[in-house]
Amino acid sequence: MSLRPTGLGVGMIGHAFMGAAHSQAWRTAGRFFDLPLTPDMAVLCGRDAATARAAADRLGWRDVETDWKELLTRDDVALVDVCAPGDVHAEIAVAALDAGKHVLCEKPLANTVEEARAMVAAAERARASGVRSMVGFNYRRVPAVALARRLVEQGRIGQVRHVRATYLQDWIVDPEVPLVWRLRAERAGSGALGDIGAHVVDLAQYVTGDRLSGVCGLTETFVRERPLPDGDGRGAVTVDDAALFLGRFAGGAVASFEATRFATGRKNQIRLEVNGSAGSLAFDFEQMNELQFFDGAEDPEVAGFRRIVVTEPAHPYAAAWWPPGHGLGYEHTFTHEIVDLVRDIAAGTDPVPSFADGLAVQLVLDAVSRSAAAGSQWKEIEE
Amino acid sequence: MSLRPTGLGVGMIGHAFMGAAHSQAWRTAGRFFDLPLTPDMAVLCGRDAATARAAADRLGWRDVETDWKELLTRDDVALVDVCAPGDVHAEIAVAALDAGKHVLCEKPLANTVEEARAMVAAAERARASGVRSMVGFNYRRVPAVALARRLVEQGRIGQVRHVRATYLQDWIVDPEVPLVWRLRAERAGSGALGDIGAHVVDLAQYVTGDRLSGVCGLTETFVRERPLPDGDGRGAVTVDDAALFLGRFAGGAVASFEATRFATGRKNQIRLEVNGSAGSLAFDFEQMNELQFFDGAEDPEVAGFRRIVVTEPAHPYAAAWWPPGHGLGYEHTFTHEIVDLVRDIAAGTDPVPSFADGLAVQLVLDAVSRSAAAGSQWKEIEE
Amino acid sequence: MSLRPTGLGVGMIGHAFMGAAHSQAWRTAGRFFDLPLTPDMAVLCGRDAATARAAADRLGWRDVETDWKELLTRDDVALVDVCAPGDVHAEIAVAALDAGKHVLCEKPLANTVEEARAMVAAAERARASGVRSMVGFNYRRVPAVALARRLVEQGRIGQVRHVRATYLQDWIVDPEVPLVWRLRAERAGSGALGDIGAHVVDLAQYVTGDRLSGVCGLTETFVRERPLPDGDGRGAVTVDDAALFLGRFAGGAVASFEATRFATGRKNQIRLEVNGSAGSLAFDFEQMNELQFFDGAEDPEVAGFRRIVVTEPAHPYAAAWWPPGHGLGYEHTFTHEIVDLVRDIAAGTDPVPSFADGLAVQLVLDAVSRSAAAGSQWKEIEE
Amino acid sequence: MSLRPTGLGVGMIGHAFMGAAHSQAWRTAGRFFDLPLTPDMAVLCGRDAATARAAADRLGWRDVETDWKELLTRDDVALVDVCAPGDVHAEIAVAALDAGKHVLCEKPLANTVEEARAMVAAAERARASGVRSMVGFNYRRVPAVALARRLVEQGRIGQVRHVRATYLQDWIVDPEVPLVWRLRAERAGSGALGDIGAHVVDLAQYVTGDRLSGVCGLTETFVRERPLPDGDGRGAVTVDDAALFLGRFAGGAVASFEATRFATGRKNQIRLEVNGSAGSLAFDFEQMNELQFFDGAEDPEVAGFRRIVVTEPAHPYAAAWWPPGHGLGYEHTFTHEIVDLVRDIAAGTDPVPSFADGLAVQLVLDAVSRSAAAGSQWKEIEE
Repeated sequence: MSLRPTGLGVGMIGHAFMGAAHSQAWRTAGRFFDLPLTPDMAVLCGRDAATARAAADRLGWRDVETDWKELLTRDDVALVDVCAPGDVHAEIAVAALDAGKHVLCEKPLANTVEEARAMVAAAERARASGVRSMVGFNYRRVPAVALARRLVEQGRIGQVRHVRATYLQDWIVDPEVPLVWRLRAERAGSGALGDIGAHVVDLAQYVTGDRLSGVCGLTETFVRERPLPDGDGRGAVTVDDAALFLGRFAGGAVASFEATRFATGRKNQIRLEVNGSAGSLAFDFEQMNELQFFDGAEDPEVAGFRRIVVTEPAHPYAAAWWPPGHGLGYEHTFTHEIVDLVRDIAAGTDPVPSFADGLAVQLVLDAVSRSAAAGSQWKEIEE
Repeated sequence: MSLRPTGLGVGMIGHAFMGAAHSQAWRTAGRFFDLPLTPDMAVLCGRDAATARAAADRLGWRDVETDWKELLTRDDVALVDVCAPGDVHAEIAVAALDAGKHVLCEKPLANTVEEARAMVAAAERARASGVRSMVGFNYRRVPAVALARRLVEQGRIGQVRHVRATYLQDWIVDPEVPLVWRLRAERAGSGALGDIGAHVVDLAQYVTGDRLSGVCGLTETFVRERPLPDGDGRGAVTVDDAALFLGRFAGGAVASFEATRFATGRKNQIRLEVNGSAGSLAFDFEQMNELQFFDGAEDPEVAGFRRIVVTEPAHPYAAAWWPPGHGLGYEHTFTHEIVDLVRDIAAGTDPVPSFADGLAVQLVLDAVSRSAAAGSQWKEIEE
Repeated sequence: MSLRPTGLGVGMIGHAFMGAAHSQAWRTAGRFFDLPLTPDMAVLCGRDAATARAAADRLGWRDVETDWKELLTRDDVALVDVCAPGDVHAEIAVAALDAGKHVLCEKPLANTVEEARAMVAAAERARASGVRSMVGFNYRRVPAVALARRLVEQGRIGQVRHVRATYLQDWIVDPEVPLVWRLRAERAGSGALGDIGAHVVDLAQYVTGDRLSGVCGLTETFVRERPLPDGDGRGAVTVDDAALFLGRFAGGAVASFEATRFATGRKNQIRLEVNGSAGSLAFDFEQMNELQFFDGAEDPEVAGFRRIVVTEPAHPYAAAWWPPGHGLGYEHTFTHEIVDLVRDIAAGTDPVPSFADGLAVQLVLDAVSRSAAAGSQWKEIEE
Repeated sequence: MSLRPTGLGVGMIGHAFMGAAHSQAWRTAGRFFDLPLTPDMAVLCGRDAATARAAADRLGWRDVETDWKELLTRDDVALVDVCAPGDVHAEIAVAALDAGKHVLCEKPLANTVEEARAMVAAAERARASGVRSMVGFNYRRVPAVALARRLVEQGRIGQVRHVRATYLQDWIVDPEVPLVWRLRAERAGSGALGDIGAHVVDLAQYVTGDRLSGVCGLTETFVRERPLPDGDGRGAVTVDDAALFLGRFAGGAVASFEATRFATGRKNQIRLEVNGSAGSLAFDFEQMNELQFFDGAEDPEVAGFRRIVVTEPAHPYAAAWWPPGHGLGYEHTFTHEIVDLVRDIAAGTDPVPSFADGLAVQLVLDAVSRSAAAGSQWKEIEE
């Protein structure tokens, strides 16, 4: 009998931005955290064999496949990590789950609610036989965000009254940025709304532990035509550049959200503020190792927002890393995601965020789209 | 012929918070700025003679009246400064203008659009005979805000795409705060919306130099009953605790607004961010002597939000005060307001913000109220 | 019998920067604070009659004198406010005290230790007959600084271990700034050391409630010749541009100080950090309405520097002004100084900072100068 | 002929905090950066075989040794990475270099100047035969710090006048923290001075491109006895808890430094500010992805410290990682160190910081110690 943990064979589909981030996480998780299963970076799947092989070498994958369906037939793959674009999430994830593979699927869960529902159904079916699934809202695993959730759960801010969430980027302010796939509805589903708005909706629902019950919103496309990527003429931008919406949570809080790619000077700024009856929390990804906490129970003479440097051993994930004050970066959110997922698989517990959580986000985005299309009419979120 | 400036007799109505702020401004303006007319703090008007007399002594007014109509008959009063609650603004201001008195009217201009329209009409009539009027959106006169406006005018941020404005307070989070007049619709008109939302709507329209063309919004009253101020039983809160709304500007920008009295830990935090095609500006009243400016024309290697300490001689209002780095406070916004008003009166030019600007704010607030009452339906702003 | 407070006749010497600041304070103190004596702005003293008269009109003084000695003979002057340059402080203050006038003397108390000692002796003599004296270290009256002192007194940070104090300006970085009097030793005594270093030494001794027992330091003059103010040729700069020193407090803390006029981009930045065995405090004048407080007793999970917005009624001086979150500016420090001084005079108590406190600062500056002149040798502070 | 890079066999000595950090860097460097040589994590060396084996498995090393001298004889080791405590740096590094192995040596280079000199001599000898050496001042490789250096080199801040550097920790404020080896002079050499003061001295010399020519300083041990780690009685703390010093740079700048383990609430705060004749730079490791830059050439109306988010492709090291706004953490400084070292080895160029740079730091620390021991007397830095 071996004392060594047994392995967990992983096959990853896609090797762009998210593929690189996930690979770093798969390589690193077991170096800092005690894992009950040892991830085995078995196969990288990409459409072009040579490109995939080069990527596999660089990213640390042993083998390559060019057809994701082959991946599902391999014995050395117990988990499929879906880093492909959103329009193929549903097909791959459902097939993988039905083939008995655990699935980690990048966000957004799908491009449409229908796809997301099918994925949730597949996850439910698979769950019965111990097959796990998780959607990759990695920002939940920023230690400061996880601490925020913990403090809300502990009742440190009381009943939640306000949520304010913005995700600001500026990478297409220049009208000469070409018409890449992210700016075309048929591939990306939506623009800022689904790409980054999805993150702040999930963050808000996660930190509050509540669900949005209705929204109204508007979207805007500031630059309506852009150069085609092949350099010949211009094509129509068919997604939103920015999406703004208001919402109500089931528990009574009111909320505002904004996702934009036109906030000049803001590179990747995620801000979340939650005000409760007994305190407040504020987070800014530009200072990702910090959480602001106002404790309403403090004597007014010394009350104030505390800048908690979230690197103490008592803080989520922090004990595995460096001494206090030695901060983490963006990539560590993925490492934490992998750690939690592997532990859940070994323990037979359900990972979060679940596909159902992913669907919950999708329903909000869908309601926002429908509201925007209907002159900002209020839309209830379907269950 | 005298080289000394001639006087400008002032009568002020009300001596609470705003009365104190205006008095300090009237006392101070001529000490730091060269004024073409010397303000003469002639009369303070309050309902109770003894209280008014005590206030006049403390605040520096020579005489007192208990009936504002008397004020309008006095020869030593050329300007009426209306610091009374919003439900009497219209009656007083119209009468004063019709009596040939210049009028400075605290914000919001009125409690209803109808009143505001009547005031604008009166201002127009009076203007023909050289009588001036201004509404007291004092935050325009924060030097950093005035600098923001100047930079927008200079085209430093290009075409405006995004406005994000919040005004957060927390003074009624405690459900035992009594049902003061500000929490009753019949006196206050609305709650957070009219009291502080008005400020951020004006700021947004001022800094962008644009007008909102439509909005959708929601309001919420978290604590619906409160102790009566006399301590006997509870009464219904009939105004909003919080108002959130989205908007579109005529020039194409999209915007989000929030005004609340339930943001635990935020005492008087006004934040405004404007993103344009060529740059961005950000302001936070908690650091009122600073303006953040991102210049999109900078080399990316050294581009960043600049924290401009707005105390240089080149900055609005700053040369009259202290050396660079010696900041101003809340009250100085009123002093600047008085300075500009007195100069306009002497020069025969139109002060801003005008009553028409005040009406423009009122129309937005009204549209927000109507939207909130109609399930967040989109409402066009009337002209 | 009158219920009105009796008056306190004031004569002020000097009407430049400090004269303007003090005048604003004398005019304002009684408007916001209940004063037991009513300041009467009787006489402004300046060398040139016409200039003084114009200044008096602008600043609100009734009468003028051109010889400060005349001031001491006037019955309508009970208090002399010395805003003249440092080289005449001693002569005026001693004469005024000996003439039975209360004295408020701007900082630094004097240009030399000998002068300062004579002033302390005069203050002691005068005190016996109820005549009061105060030196104008106005930054003690920033509410956030006064709160810091209060928290140290309450033991909230335990035993003080570290003090870090810097006063950074940049107004003479340009080598073409002319050789004004502040850059000549014979008038100014010293450069950055006495002008602004004095402030941070006083702040450090005030907030800790302790005295420096020894120092070592260095000074530097980066630009050694400058254009003469009359535009004809260049002259030698005979004061320090920057002074840096280390110190030990009697109670065991160690400290570092820096005062400079060459910190490009820092206009008037005063920073003070104090670390104790049980907590820490940090202040930055660029955010003068805030105090940072770290409470070492907090659970590490939620411990952090709290940004206290020092505008609550419970905070020093704040209740007299505006509602929470409506900040103060530089000038209010002088108003608070006047308020405390007038109350002490009425109550027959000793104002602080006393001339002895001013001497304590002078002794530190003198030791720094001697250390710098002796190759940074350690110098004990004389008692 | 192979197009694949050839390998670089690495042997690492030590597997505590620094060993973990270096291992992560060795594992990661080639995943994100194109390296001309492929690091081969050949051998981990630790005194206890079982512990070393477990560490090797966790950290990713193929083989283990228990005697570092064996390491030097192995053909599969071309580079020795010294992560052992400072008192053995000299012996190991000299032997390794003399054995023809490239050496990466953690900071501080040595515990004494004599050792450091011997190491520099060995590095010089080895260099002649193409053997390279580097000392591990990892904070140079924070992208914001490297950008600061670049801007100084470009002349963007002009002639350097001021350096202000502090390294604040608080891990031994509690007097019950036991007497670990870092608090004993015989192992650690010094306390805060050598452990963290070394970093800020190197940072200051690196960013300015200049060397300190003299210093005066003081040290303090606040808690002089602590519990023995074995729990039986107390022993004397024989190193400094805090060190403060002033310095002069050869180029004319003046500087202040502080290193302490008693700054309650400061976990690992490194701050560096440099003021020049044409601009300023400021860095705070608590916001390690940001650099503050003041450009003195800006129009005063819009001048201000810019908060540069140092994640643009144009920024040092950033292009290899994530899109703009997705920040890095502490560990990435080591990855960058490895990347630069491997590239230098392949190119046959001299890595920096060199052992001579390490000696330069050691000479400063030694002068500070001697100054502190001599009543803060000024000490010239030897060449």
